[in-house]
Amino acid sequence: MTIAGRLHHVAYVVPDIDRALPGFTTRYGMQEVVRETMQEQGVEAVMLRAGPAHVELIRPLDADGAIARFLEKRGEGLHHVAYAVDDIAAALATLAAEGAELIDTAPRRGLGGHMVAFVHPRSGTGALTELVEEHG
Amino acid sequence: MTIAGRLHHVAYVVPDIDRALPGFTTRYGMQEVVRETMQEQGVEAVMLRAGPAHVELIRPLDADGAIARFLEKRGEGLHHVAYAVDDIAAALATLAAEGAELIDTAPRRGLGGHMVAFVHPRSGTGALTELVEEHG
Repeated sequence: MTIAGRLHHVAYVVPDIDRALPGFTTRYGMQEVVRETMQEQGVEAVMLRAGPAHVELIRPLDADGAIARFLEKRGEGLHHVAYAVDDIAAALATLAAEGAELIDTAPRRGLGGHMVAFVHPRSGTGALTELVEEHG
Repeated sequence: MTIAGRLHHVAYVVPDIDRALPGFTTRYGMQEVVRETMQEQGVEAVMLRAGPAHVELIRPLDADGAIARFLEKRGEGLHHVAYAVDDIAAALATLAAEGAELIDTAPRRGLGGHMVAFVHPRSGTGALTELVEEHG
C-alpha cells in the first residue's frame, strides 16, 4: 500500500540555535514558524518555512540524550528527513506490515503540535526518517 | 543580502538506484521526474517528485570519485540538501561576499538541466548544500 509521502522538512542538529538561525533566516529569507523546548526529548527546536517545505534546527538542552550524542560524535549537520502523510497511524501500520523497523510504533506529539513517528535508518535508505501528520 | 532559498530536494547516496526506488515510489507514491547518467561526475541520478519538493537518489558509476568514497565510508544515506534560488549567479556572489566556502564558484549544469552549485558543509551548517536555479 502506498502512503503518499511529501517532503516536509530536513532537520539539522546544531550546538546553538541562535547562532545557526542567520544561516537560514538572513541568508535564505526563511521565516520562523514555531520554536519549542521539549523537555521530554531534551531538546529545543525551531521550524522554519523554506518555501514549499520546512527546515528544522535542533539543539540538545544538556549533554545527555541522542541529540547531544549525535553532536558530540558527528558535529552539526543533517539529522533526519521528514515526510508528511495524511494518516500517520495508517502509514505506521503499512510500514509495520512491510517489516520496516519503527522507532515509534505509535504516533506522538512533535514540534508545533504535529503527530510524528520515527523510522530507523535501516528502513529509511540509511537516513533517520520522520513521518509527520500535520495539525493546527 | 537575502537569497530567498526554498527547500528543493534532499539527496541520498545509494549503491543501487533500482533497489532503492521502491522505498520512495512504492512506499510514498513519489513519481520519477528525470533520470540521467552524468559521466563527468561519475554518477547516475534520479529525481523524484515528493509533494512540493523532491528527493534525489545518486549512485556511483564505479569505485572512484566522491560519491563512491561517501558510500564506502558511510554507507547509504543522506548526502546533501538543496535550496532553489531565483538567480544562482547572484546567490553565489552574495555567499562569496559573506566569505562562504564555495565548492563551485560558478554555476554548472546539474541533473535535469537545472543550474547548480555546491557550498561546503563548513558554510552550510555542517551539511553539503546545493543551490539550484530551476530550468525547463
